[in-house]
Amino acid sequence: MTNKSANKMWGGRFEMSPDELMVRINASIGFDRVLAPQDIRGSKAHAAMLAETGIISKSDAREIAKGLDQIAVEIAEGKFKFSEALEDIHMNVESRLTELIGPAAGRLHTARSRNDQVALDFRMYVRDAASSFDLALGELQRTLAQKALEHAHVIMPGFTHLQPAQPVTFGHHLLAYVEMFGRDRGRFADARKRMNECPLGAAALAGTSFPIDRSETAKALGFERPTANSLDSVADRDFALEVLAAATISATHLSRLSEEIVIWMTPQFGFVKLSDKWTTGSSIMPQKRNPDAAELCRAKVARIAAAFQGLTMVMKGLPLTYSKDMQEDKETTFDALENYSVAVAAMTGMISDLEPMPERMRAAAGSGYSTATDLADWLVRTLKMPFREAHHVTGSIVRQAEQRGLELSELPLEAMQAEEKRITKDVFTVLSVENSVKSRKSHGGTAPQNVTKMAKSWLRRLEKGRSSG
Amino acid sequence: MTNKSANKMWGGRFEMSPDELMVRINASIGFDRVLAPQDIRGSKAHAAMLAETGIISKSDAREIAKGLDQIAVEIAEGKFKFSEALEDIHMNVESRLTELIGPAAGRLHTARSRNDQVALDFRMYVRDAASSFDLALGELQRTLAQKALEHAHVIMPGFTHLQPAQPVTFGHHLLAYVEMFGRDRGRFADARKRMNECPLGAAALAGTSFPIDRSETAKALGFERPTANSLDSVADRDFALEVLAAATISATHLSRLSEEIVIWMTPQFGFVKLSDKWTTGSSIMPQKRNPDAAELCRAKVARIAAAFQGLTMVMKGLPLTYSKDMQEDKETTFDALENYSVAVAAMTGMISDLEPMPERMRAAAGSGYSTATDLADWLVRTLKMPFREAHHVTGSIVRQAEQRGLELSELPLEAMQAEEKRITKDVFTVLSVENSVKSRKSHGGTAPQNVTKMAKSWLRRLEKGRSSG
Amino acid sequence: MTNKSANKMWGGRFEMSPDELMVRINASIGFDRVLAPQDIRGSKAHAAMLAETGIISKSDAREIAKGLDQIAVEIAEGKFKFSEALEDIHMNVESRLTELIGPAAGRLHTARSRNDQVALDFRMYVRDAASSFDLALGELQRTLAQKALEHAHVIMPGFTHLQPAQPVTFGHHLLAYVEMFGRDRGRFADARKRMNECPLGAAALAGTSFPIDRSETAKALGFERPTANSLDSVADRDFALEVLAAATISATHLSRLSEEIVIWMTPQFGFVKLSDKWTTGSSIMPQKRNPDAAELCRAKVARIAAAFQGLTMVMKGLPLTYSKDMQEDKETTFDALENYSVAVAAMTGMISDLEPMPERMRAAAGSGYSTATDLADWLVRTLKMPFREAHHVTGSIVRQAEQRGLELSELPLEAMQAEEKRITKDVFTVLSVENSVKSRKSHGGTAPQNVTKMAKSWLRRLEKGRSSG
Amino acid sequence: MTNKSANKMWGGRFEMSPDELMVRINASIGFDRVLAPQDIRGSKAHAAMLAETGIISKSDAREIAKGLDQIAVEIAEGKFKFSEALEDIHMNVESRLTELIGPAAGRLHTARSRNDQVALDFRMYVRDAASSFDLALGELQRTLAQKALEHAHVIMPGFTHLQPAQPVTFGHHLLAYVEMFGRDRGRFADARKRMNECPLGAAALAGTSFPIDRSETAKALGFERPTANSLDSVADRDFALEVLAAATISATHLSRLSEEIVIWMTPQFGFVKLSDKWTTGSSIMPQKRNPDAAELCRAKVARIAAAFQGLTMVMKGLPLTYSKDMQEDKETTFDALENYSVAVAAMTGMISDLEPMPERMRAAAGSGYSTATDLADWLVRTLKMPFREAHHVTGSIVRQAEQRGLELSELPLEAMQAEEKRITKDVFTVLSVENSVKSRKSHGGTAPQNVTKMAKSWLRRLEKGRSSG
Repeated sequence: MTNKSANKMWGGRFEMSPDELMVRINASIGFDRVLAPQDIRGSKAHAAMLAETGIISKSDAREIAKGLDQIAVEIAEGKFKFSEALEDIHMNVESRLTELIGPAAGRLHTARSRNDQVALDFRMYVRDAASSFDLALGELQRTLAQKALEHAHVIMPGFTHLQPAQPVTFGHHLLAYVEMFGRDRGRFADARKRMNECPLGAAALAGTSFPIDRSETAKALGFERPTANSLDSVADRDFALEVLAAATISATHLSRLSEEIVIWMTPQFGFVKLSDKWTTGSSIMPQKRNPDAAELCRAKVARIAAAFQGLTMVMKGLPLTYSKDMQEDKETTFDALENYSVAVAAMTGMISDLEPMPERMRAAAGSGYSTATDLADWLVRTLKMPFREAHHVTGSIVRQAEQRGLELSELPLEAMQAEEKRITKDVFTVLSVENSVKSRKSHGGTAPQNVTKMAKSWLRRLEKGRSSG
Repeated sequence: MTNKSANKMWGGRFEMSPDELMVRINASIGFDRVLAPQDIRGSKAHAAMLAETGIISKSDAREIAKGLDQIAVEIAEGKFKFSEALEDIHMNVESRLTELIGPAAGRLHTARSRNDQVALDFRMYVRDAASSFDLALGELQRTLAQKALEHAHVIMPGFTHLQPAQPVTFGHHLLAYVEMFGRDRGRFADARKRMNECPLGAAALAGTSFPIDRSETAKALGFERPTANSLDSVADRDFALEVLAAATISATHLSRLSEEIVIWMTPQFGFVKLSDKWTTGSSIMPQKRNPDAAELCRAKVARIAAAFQGLTMVMKGLPLTYSKDMQEDKETTFDALENYSVAVAAMTGMISDLEPMPERMRAAAGSGYSTATDLADWLVRTLKMPFREAHHVTGSIVRQAEQRGLELSELPLEAMQAEEKRITKDVFTVLSVENSVKSRKSHGGTAPQNVTKMAKSWLRRLEKGRSSG
Repeated sequence: MTNKSANKMWGGRFEMSPDELMVRINASIGFDRVLAPQDIRGSKAHAAMLAETGIISKSDAREIAKGLDQIAVEIAEGKFKFSEALEDIHMNVESRLTELIGPAAGRLHTARSRNDQVALDFRMYVRDAASSFDLALGELQRTLAQKALEHAHVIMPGFTHLQPAQPVTFGHHLLAYVEMFGRDRGRFADARKRMNECPLGAAALAGTSFPIDRSETAKALGFERPTANSLDSVADRDFALEVLAAATISATHLSRLSEEIVIWMTPQFGFVKLSDKWTTGSSIMPQKRNPDAAELCRAKVARIAAAFQGLTMVMKGLPLTYSKDMQEDKETTFDALENYSVAVAAMTGMISDLEPMPERMRAAAGSGYSTATDLADWLVRTLKMPFREAHHVTGSIVRQAEQRGLELSELPLEAMQAEEKRITKDVFTVLSVENSVKSRKSHGGTAPQNVTKMAKSWLRRLEKGRSSG
Repeated sequence: MTNKSANKMWGGRFEMSPDELMVRINASIGFDRVLAPQDIRGSKAHAAMLAETGIISKSDAREIAKGLDQIAVEIAEGKFKFSEALEDIHMNVESRLTELIGPAAGRLHTARSRNDQVALDFRMYVRDAASSFDLALGELQRTLAQKALEHAHVIMPGFTHLQPAQPVTFGHHLLAYVEMFGRDRGRFADARKRMNECPLGAAALAGTSFPIDRSETAKALGFERPTANSLDSVADRDFALEVLAAATISATHLSRLSEEIVIWMTPQFGFVKLSDKWTTGSSIMPQKRNPDAAELCRAKVARIAAAFQGLTMVMKGLPLTYSKDMQEDKETTFDALENYSVAVAAMTGMISDLEPMPERMRAAAGSGYSTATDLADWLVRTLKMPFREAHHVTGSIVRQAEQRGLELSELPLEAMQAEEKRITKDVFTVLSVENSVKSRKSHGGTAPQNVTKMAKSWLRRLEKGRSSG
């Protein structure tokens, strides 16, 4: 992306000769240079295999490996001169290799083509990203589970329609996200496993007549096996789509948590605090804490979803095998995956920094008859009333309380008995938010003892590097 | 969707009282009635568990089960009266149950809420869809592999940029899609496994104080385990997103194959024939074969991708747990999954019907110097020339052939020797398209022996119900 | 969309013969029947022109018109028998016409083709939708402007980052949306104008040799002129894309207002009330007001944006002219436009119903040093301080106030003078939220007098049917 | 976008302190630096107005203008040091201004805020892009119309379903795109007009108490008027959405033409030639002409549509006014608009370069009974047969021709008379493709005289700078 020249270009476009424009839209070195490590690693494996199978000499292979190592150093140190005329990372590297080691460089491309080379490089990049996401999400889960353990007893309102519905604990709320990010990790792991087949050796599209050993290169590059069909190997980009889809789904989870942080940070809610690390202030209104990081995390799903959508549209209706359209696969994928990575890291930082305000949460949980369901359940359990009837009786009692301006736990017993005479004072045991949350002991329920146990269980599992149960 | 009333509505909208409009946008019975089988199955499992744990009586449970069975019959026979006033499938069923069995119906909703009920129904629907897709794709794979086996030796051009590049076999081309659809099946299988946790028992959002046994209902409904967090259980729809993403990716594969069929069916290509079953004619131009089914399959990816995109946008930034926005999850998901299903079935029918025209394919494969790479490889292999040099020499030879209007295999040996004197007549062994494809014996290459072996291997695996190697 | 059969289909798909499936995916009568009014109107205009130009007899034209009128009645009364075998609305109508009037019906299709016929019908449908949206948005604007006029003086916090920033008035906030919906109307009007060319007479794709008068049919059907290129006429669907894009953009506006209503309705904010007309309650928690309508309006943007995205993907890369892919244009467009229409109507109802809580708003506006900018501006204006310096001094003063737990207007003058000795008691005139909003008299600023004037101006303009200034 | 660091970041993320990450995600200077010209222009206009209204002194305004001019030069010459710590373009410029002119720089921000400043800059950028697109599309239209004029008589098949349907002329086909791009220009022009209101002076969100003159700045910056509501001014980005939508729609047109070029360039079609300017070759297969530029143009719609979709998702559900999410508006918009611009320029170059192969086109047009409709029309016109009957008779005749392996014009008269005895030899006048196209003289039809006239008309209008009739 060369935004810098955007305006210049619009102004001066017609002075550009077609040749120049063609060079420019055709070249990918502006963005595919990030594939340099993958490209060099792939070429080294290829050369080693060519020597092993006798297709090139061992001394040529040694020269090639040495030259490639030097190029890797040059790139890492920022000394490598990238050339747009050489179009892409593959030709840039090969050209430099020729300068460094002469004719032997010309043997590297035996039994290989740019088509399988770029398929390999891009696949390794996406695979590595998926691996890194798994680690990063594990860290986010650990941070959430730790915070959940610390606040397993902190009561807050559980919301539906952003209206308080029933009391839950803050720890329980955080653990909901641990579950989501656990599934997200599962998606990346599955995608990684599915894509972990090596396309190298598919050559231009039909395979090769050289007696190559694809299993050897596959193994050397960390793949489980070589791909099984040469046309498919150079034509498909479903591995990138799958990782983008998994990142999109995960980013919806990030966006939901971000939205909650934004809302919780308002003076009206005041449920949490974030430090200066993750907010911006206003030099003029020093009390202000703008939740910029949360807002950015909320927005990132858009960019990542757009990348998935865009690549889907690129691939739609493309006949096999390679078409130049597929050059559009990389730039937006790189951008989306990097932005996803940043969002996960920022969320991890925010959660670590997040400080709940238990009094504000507790106060919000206690208002609004949030234990009405507990009352109805008491009627069912104790008086054996059918639930629908209990539901009806509870409605009447709450209406009474509302008319008197009282919370349920403040309503006199007689007022309740006026609606259902069998109610006893035992009912008050279920009307406090504390008892309400304690009672929700069903599997997965919000009872603090559940939450503590689940948080500990997650921390143990995460210690062992597992993403799920 | 009530398209029928679209125009009426625009015209008469302002005569509609707000109440009416609210009823209309709020009700979901227009589309969630397809969930009836899931809803009834879930309620039966719930009632059985309530009885097992002593929360309701065994006789009540029997009444409930009997009533639900009758409702299932009524719905299947089209005799059930759906009511918009009752909003959704859950209330429609419960209301009818009350008519049928009286007060016992009121006990069914004990320790349950519409929130976990709809989460359960929708999840079972999506899970069943994923299972059916796996079967349908297996059938498509089988059809492709069978066709590939029959045409393992039929030579056609392998394309890049829709320009003939190297010869391949038709069977090899079809097997590329068998690989793709195999990965697609893997995605559905992974999604199915990941979502296979039962949300029932999460209740409104916080769990319940009743001593329910969530493992029992999970087991009864074919789930591996109950979900672990009640908030997450009612708040997330990532399982639907994942299946939509997998369907989108698979639909790109369908769209590519469809595009190829459309192009191959042109008189200019003439590579394949489809019968009247999958084409439409023109009563005025009887020779015309419009590949309507292929065109529709090509287009379906748009609708499916849009459903994924839409649900992503619905979920973006929603605070936990349930918000009414999530009512938008079902209609487009149902539509997308059904359209995907239809597209897979149509493609299976087309492939089965598809008849290749080997002469047209062979002629197209033989033109355009498609064996130039074979010549270059021969120079490398036989003369030990570096590939880049061989590439250069080959270019010169092809240029000569082009100037003389000859194919490579027709060019006199001397003409080649003029470019590189060490070339011998042995070179002609690699210049025919037949020998070219035969030589591509590397793993995954297009050699007919590879293709035959791979097609058979796939047919064996598919016999055993496996989606991949 | 035949969701109802979704499950059945998955279960029984393989029992369906390909022929059946082809019939099913090929037929569009399931959804294009909504085009019946347009189809009949177009045919009547066509027949009249054919008679006028002498291509058919006047008596045939009369018969045709009479038959079509009868069909229109049959459809309106629900007595018309739609047949899937007849594929689409065009053939259904023509077939019935033949039953009714015999051979003369066969002359109707002279100099016409299904390609220009469907292009016409769909275009008229989309055009009529655009017109109806203009009216509906006008009504929404009027409702907003009226409410703004009533509450021109009600002070609330103006937010950035959902943090209170500066006080504004509720009326000013509502007028922001009047501006947005005004631009939305402009988009529909522009789209309507651009698409208002009649494709009838393009025939299959190449025009016709009959001496038709396209200007006459164009005029009869309310178009400004006939289209200028026959291929373009049957091949493009950009008119639908443009209206979908305009609806998407407008739906983002609806979603933002909806989000605000959802947030304002929380007990924590408590800025507004909605009656039972636009909320759902809970029989068990009678105080609960779930803002369902607002949530649905918030979500609808997803479905509409998805329709735009989907149709873009359908059209991507389609060679001219008609391809069957384009059958996918209608169903999702109908659905999206109807949903947009419902959302506008629901929002209009909500705004009309919305009751602000001035005390809650005022209290929220007055906290958080929201007049700090006013203090800085006073320093600039009165003491001629550079703004950046004034900004710095203000920051120090606010910090003092914060440490003392006071609002700015409560801080003693000496405390301010400790930071800047030239400050006089005159400063207090700018520190109240009332004076703050009053002072913002710049064009478009929030001063109540501005708001009143602007609201009245809008109401006048809307009276005259204008969408903008 | 910092792709270069993508891998580094994943590896080293956890070593990054939260502060560093926050700085990084918060800063926008990496991409908003392209707004420098707009930012400086806006500041100059603002300062001039402040002086004019007496808010700052004339000498301060002179200093500010001088300093800004120098900064513009520094940026243009690449000498400006952008700082990430200064976050964005606005602070970078203001900070440098302070270095250059001292305290007077502090007066520039009077009665202004970053919120209205960035809204202004971005709006001017998008507005300028829309203007440049209008010019570029005009050039593309001119190129197409010129080519159409040159080839107004060249006959090619008109396709439906990518099957030859009726003969048309190449010029006619090209003019279809002139119409499409004309409507695209109309969309950009409408969008430009609608957005051409100046947000400067909206300040943070509420307007200002300074006696600014917004009309003056609006005029100075080429706007028609100032915006009418300060909240709306800083909160909305619909102007960017509208231009992205228009670019998306236009890009579908580009993608369709690109697809046609790709298909026409296959050896199987061979309808057109492109020179080396717009194709890439293969050093090994010198006859190969890969239509890379067309493929890239085809793919670009995906990226542009994704930008629209992404920004829609960013804006979805954002409460007023500014939220940090909106920082995501620029990077993808810049990228999409630049890519659109490149695609238009590349298409213009390709069309200019495109050479049709009339013999191949003519041959393809003449096969496949493409004049069957002409025969049917003859029966209607000459024998007064109802069209449906004529359609039926024609079908029988074509079937006869097909059985004999003859084209329609080769079929003996007796064979036709066997189907319909009233047919005379006059019928042959309509059976040649030449006569077929000549006969299609209806308005917008493909008759060469129409095409010539229309092409000339377009060239005249384009000369005068008009986008449509």
